[in-house]
Order: sequence, then structure tokens, then C-alpha cells
Amino acid sequence: MSKNTRISTELRSVETLIKKDFSKEETISGLYKYIFKSNGKKIRARLCLTTSSKTKNKEKIKLASVIELLHTATLIHDDVVDDSPTRRGSQSVNNLWTNSHGVLIGDYIYSKAFIYLVDIGNKKILKELADTTNDIAQGELIQLDAINNVDITLNKLKKISYFKTGRLFEAAAKTGAIISNENKIFISNVSECAKNLGILFQITDDLLDYSGNNKIGKPVFQDIKEGKVTYPFFYAYKNANTKQKKYLKELLGFSKKLKSKDIELISSLQGIKKTKQLAKKYHNRAIEFAKKIKNLDIRKEMIELADIALNRDK
Amino acid sequence: MSKNTRISTELRSVETLIKKDFSKEETISGLYKYIFKSNGKKIRARLCLTTSSKTKNKEKIKLASVIELLHTATLIHDDVVDDSPTRRGSQSVNNLWTNSHGVLIGDYIYSKAFIYLVDIGNKKILKELADTTNDIAQGELIQLDAINNVDITLNKLKKISYFKTGRLFEAAAKTGAIISNENKIFISNVSECAKNLGILFQITDDLLDYSGNNKIGKPVFQDIKEGKVTYPFFYAYKNANTKQKKYLKELLGFSKKLKSKDIELISSLQGIKKTKQLAKKYHNRAIEFAKKIKNLDIRKEMIELADIALNRDK
Repeated sequence: MSKNTRISTELRSVETLIKKDFSKEETISGLYKYIFKSNGKKIRARLCLTTSSKTKNKEKIKLASVIELLHTATLIHDDVVDDSPTRRGSQSVNNLWTNSHGVLIGDYIYSKAFIYLVDIGNKKILKELADTTNDIAQGELIQLDAINNVDITLNKLKKISYFKTGRLFEAAAKTGAIISNENKIFISNVSECAKNLGILFQITDDLLDYSGNNKIGKPVFQDIKEGKVTYPFFYAYKNANTKQKKYLKELLGFSKKLKSKDIELISSLQGIKKTKQLAKKYHNRAIEFAKKIKNLDIRKEMIELADIALNRDK
Repeated sequence: MSKNTRISTELRSVETLIKKDFSKEETISGLYKYIFKSNGKKIRARLCLTTSSKTKNKEKIKLASVIELLHTATLIHDDVVDDSPTRRGSQSVNNLWTNSHGVLIGDYIYSKAFIYLVDIGNKKILKELADTTNDIAQGELIQLDAINNVDITLNKLKKISYFKTGRLFEAAAKTGAIISNENKIFISNVSECAKNLGILFQITDDLLDYSGNNKIGKPVFQDIKEGKVTYPFFYAYKNANTKQKKYLKELLGFSKKLKSKDIELISSLQGIKKTKQLAKKYHNRAIEFAKKIKNLDIRKEMIELADIALNRDK
């Protein structure tokens, strides 16, 4: 079986494992089924299955499911935090039910992930994912505190991208390698590759939000409305003159409809171009570490994932 | 050192351990300090320290801290779910900051608890607390779904009390006994005692909400306003005639100020009396299991905790 076919088969096993597990309580199973009916891209689970591809250890499906569950729990809580109406092309839990349902089903899914993790019973993996979950919450909190803050530094933005997104990519690759009993150098290379890939993924996510593309399954121009300074705004603001700065400041955090001239302004101030350059930089870094991976299949798959993250349109 | 002095000293160590741990990020440490500045009753941590009192294992302080962190995380998410303005006599996180802060700092504290748990590294304890966290979320979701449901059964109410409250009491006692390497019979007796004690604690919590007592550190008459059918309302509704049922139904879920005649109606329909009888029943059960504990110090402490849960006025 070719590598890609095997990973696709394994990803289906992840789906099956997640979907078969539901509570006897109707409300809970209803919510749970709704959440997992729309299949996400599962790029994090795929990373984990890639770095663990040398082992026949069956626990790796469970591990990839944990990664997917943790990711889903963070998405659901994010949607509550951002008051987002849609997710993966469907109504978000907080929209179709209530914020309270979002908070609690998120907790349910988080703890479900920890139950699976305990079943796997590998202390290093447990530690990595407990730390990761904490870092994700930290990243989200730092971002929350930076709302409407036009003076945010590039370093802070990078920290947010790493904590809220890169961290789980890194942990997915790292724990996959750990469960596959790989050596330290391999673990370090795939972790660094995945970390940069994850930050890249967040940067292209920020770009997509400014693209006006409605294929992405969630609302566009959302970040600026929510007062979130992301890379395109950051660079545009940096290059703006006093009058433009004042105008941009007024756009931030207001739910009025963005006009095409607003996006054009951000674009003309290099907001999109500079963000694309930053994306390319992280893509290069991811590739650099991918090239250090000796196993050619895994190297190829990591490069493919980095290319997907760079070129994605949803 | 007498047993009670030792537990008080250990509880202070729990506080110290929790408080010394803070993020370098200002927002997070600000939130964290605010949350732990008001010391709760720590009855769950005390239970854990009681059932582990025979061991000198230093990890038990960390375990009791995990229990306290998990409990605090559920409280913070609860306050978001209930939109509660106060907690432990202070403004709640969702009130002083925002709901989003409540969701995320709750996640932060949950994952912090799992980091400590991984440090302790006992698989049985990990399993028990991962399961417990999942059960708590289930209990809260079942309760959420039962909002404004006057036809809720007594069994469902008991399940909610067990999952959302009794379960963590049970786990606190059980994991304390596990870390102390106790035998199966001891583990079973303290777990059953604590489970009933926890359900009792929830029943008296429901009673306090109807008491009009403002010592409890959170708003009173909150449950009925939120549409939550708890024991006092349940029993009163069961005993009401058609006209009274209609009136009670109208009180449920409305934020209008409850009049003293409303509380009197619930009382006259045996709502308070029957709930007190139920509390006594769970108190008896807790005592019954406490009496099976051979260690006299631990037995005495468990009985004392059951008495506190029965007679508490805050």
C-alpha cells in the first residue's frame, strides 16, 4: 500500500474511532455527532500519522484521534471566544445551541482526549500534550489581551501564532515520533519542521481572512472586525502615515461592513505582500528541517504538508 | 502534631503551591492571582489530604492541588455558563473581565492540573481524574439541557448532583487513598462516603440558594431565575395543584425579582422540608460508609466533613 493511501486509511480509522464514541445522554451525543459530522482537514492528525508511519503500533490511531479531539475542543472554545457564527462551513455550536453548550462540550471533548491519552499511557506523550494544551490557552489569552492593540509587536504576534497554532502542530509530529520510538535527532527535526509549518498555517489563515474567499467555511474579514491585529493589518499599520493610521485604527474592532477600498488600503500599504513574505519565510524554515529527515517518505510527506499550508485556499 | 493541625498545614502548602505557579505573561498572571486570592473552603482538597493522611508521600500536596485546580476550573466555566456576577464573595472572572477570559483561563487552569497530574505520574490517578473531568462536563451539559424542564425526574436530578459535584468529591477521596497505597476495601469505603458527601454538598448548595442568605458569596435565588429546576422547586412542583403549577412554571427562568411569597409558596409545598430530608438521607449514607473505615482518625475526619456539608451556611 502506498504511503498516502495508508495515511488516508489511517485517517478514516481516526474518524471511526472518534465517531463511535458517544455518551448515552441524548444532548451530549447530539452535540458530539453534530461537531464531528463535518470532517475537517485533519492536517494535525495527518502530521502525527506521518511521523509515526514507521511503526505498526496500533496506539498511533488513538494518538492521532487525541490530536484531533484536542484541536476540535480548542476550535469550539475559540468560536465561543470570538462569537463566531460558522465553523467548517456549518453553524458553530455556540450559534446553533448556546455559548454555554460550546463551553461545556469543549470541556467534554478535552477530557475525552485525556482519557484516550491515559489509555495510551506514555508519560512523555502525556507531558507533551498537557503542556501543549496549556500553551494553547496561553496563546489565546495573550491574543485576547491584544485586542485593539495597534502597538502590538511582531514578536508578540509570532508568539501568538506559535502558541495558538504552531504548538499543536509541533506536538502532533513530536508525539507521533515518540510513539514510533524514533531517535532524538528525528524527533527534533520533525518537531521543528511541524512547528514552523504550524506557524505558516496560522499566517495563511490570517491571509485567508483578508482574501474575501468564502470557501474557507468561516466568515471573512472577521479578524479586523473583532479588533484582532493579525499580520496583514500589522504590516499595513506599520507602513501607514498618520492619517492612514487614524483611519485603520477606526476600522479595528468595529462590526461595520468593510469596504473594498479598506482592503485595498491594507493591500497598498504592503499588508498582504509582507505577510506573504513572512509565510514564505516559515515555509522555507519548515522545508529546511524537512530536508534533514533521513527517511525519504516522511521527508516527502512533510514537504507536501508545508506546501499545502503555504498554498491553501481554505 | 494533631491531625487537624496537619491537614491545615497541608492545605496551606496546597495554596502556596498553586499561588507560586504563574505565567510570565501579565494578563495570565493577573487573572490567575485574582482567581486564587480568595481562598475557597477547599473541602475537596481536604478530603484528598484526609484519605492520604497515612502516607508521607510528598506528592499528595500536588495531588490535592490538582483537585483544587480542577474544581476551580469548573467553577470558572460554570460562572460563564450561568452568567454569574460573583463567586467566593468577589466579582466573577466573566464579570470583571469577559466571558472569553473565563473560558480561556478555565482551560489554562484545567491543563495546569493535567501538567501536575503527569508529574505525579500515577496511571490510576490519571485515569480517575480524566474520567472525572469528563463526567463533570457531562453533568453540566445534562443540567443545561434540563433548563426550564419542570418534568425532570428525581433520578435525573440525582444524576446531575452526582456528576457535577459528587464525582469530584469521590475522586478526591479515591485518588488520595490510591496515592497512599491503601487497600481496595479502604478505597471503596472512602470513595462511597465521599460520593454521598458530595451529593449532600450539592443538595445543601441548592437549599442555600433558596435561603436568602447572602453569606454564601454568590447571588441567591439564582437557580430559579436561570430556569434550573433543583430539589426545592422539584418537590414543591410535585406537590402543587394545577393553579400553583402554572404559577411556579412562570417563575422559572425569569429574571424578575422573586417575592417572599414565592419562596413561601415553595416552602409551603414542602420544597424545603423534602430537600432537607433528602440531604439527611445522603448524610446518613455518608456516615454509614465512614463508619466502615477502620482508621479512627480518618473515620472521624470524614464524619466531620459530612457534618460540615449538612450544616453549612455558606
